[in-house]
Amino acid sequence: MEQYPSKLIEDAVNAMSSLPGVGKRTALRLVLNLLKRDPFEVENFASAFTRMRNEIKFCTQCHNIADGDLCGVCSDTRRDTTIICVVENLRDVMAIENTMSFRGVYHLLGGIISPMDGIGPADLNIESLVRRISAGHVNEVILALSATMEGDTTNFYIFKKLGGLDVKVTTIARGVPVGDELEYTDEVTLGRSIANRIMYESNLAR
Amino acid sequence: MEQYPSKLIEDAVNAMSSLPGVGKRTALRLVLNLLKRDPFEVENFASAFTRMRNEIKFCTQCHNIADGDLCGVCSDTRRDTTIICVVENLRDVMAIENTMSFRGVYHLLGGIISPMDGIGPADLNIESLVRRISAGHVNEVILALSATMEGDTTNFYIFKKLGGLDVKVTTIARGVPVGDELEYTDEVTLGRSIANRIMYESNLAR
Repeated sequence: MEQYPSKLIEDAVNAMSSLPGVGKRTALRLVLNLLKRDPFEVENFASAFTRMRNEIKFCTQCHNIADGDLCGVCSDTRRDTTIICVVENLRDVMAIENTMSFRGVYHLLGGIISPMDGIGPADLNIESLVRRISAGHVNEVILALSATMEGDTTNFYIFKKLGGLDVKVTTIARGVPVGDELEYTDEVTLGRSIANRIMYESNLAR
Repeated sequence: MEQYPSKLIEDAVNAMSSLPGVGKRTALRLVLNLLKRDPFEVENFASAFTRMRNEIKFCTQCHNIADGDLCGVCSDTRRDTTIICVVENLRDVMAIENTMSFRGVYHLLGGIISPMDGIGPADLNIESLVRRISAGHVNEVILALSATMEGDTTNFYIFKKLGGLDVKVTTIARGVPVGDELEYTDEVTLGRSIANRIMYESNLAR
């Protein structure tokens, strides 16, 4: 166990290393960097996190992070509200937004069904998704979850939940990543990409 | 440029990525982790840094971090105050303390002479080192700086500064690291380890 020269340093190191993937050694390096700054700079550093936590709002419609009642996407009248893309969290929204290829709206589950981590369907924003779709005016739900066991489980659970509703349920394509060589693609992905092959013309159209 | 869904998130990401070695992507991951915590937890997280910055004191003797006027080492009456080990910063103190093989006291320079970074002798705690030694009762100064050009420059500067004083100036040994194989040691280190060879018996005594 490391011996810290000061309780204040030790507390700061413990706080820093509570972040995922930050070890005690890295934490000490970061804390010593803060120690070199002016007190008001450290004040600003710290308040960025408390302000975020205390003042942040969540979109009442899609659970995305928002500065007001609705998030930037839901309040944008140019977005197509008849297509809802279901994602796990904010980072997925940002990733999809960066592709500039989706003009619909989102629904953030806030996680994924994972019995190992004690996360069940009740912990996720699934009921509000069902309500949104039951209200009508939604043509398609795109399930855009990770290609993992948990993602597949969650996909299936949502698919079942939406069973009685008049909505098309799709999932994003799994296949060989653009730019990847075929021989290095794992066989499950390659197998799926063959099973889910599409008409050549539809690729050209993009 | 990434598009953040909220100014609050953006500010928090910018604060987090102001830490050395933390990129925007990692910062976002860490910030979203904080967002999942209870508000009072984030409050504690943030206050650990502001408290540290505002309340921390520096040892009036050796410039080490201290909870009071003197640091833990300087206030420990069992330490040998006739031997001063000169180091760059707190991390070096911790590294040496962890070896459990030094019973003297320290002097923290607060950096190292580095013209590239605009750090000159006046920016370091060198004057106070000279005063400490001028006051007498110090037999030996051990220069324990990095084995770099900057470390060597700083060593030489301090050695010159202490010229007129009645004190033995030593530097830590450079040589083949314990556990390393000879053939993989770089030639400068190997050359120095031969030039600075010591009597076999003195090694056995340890």
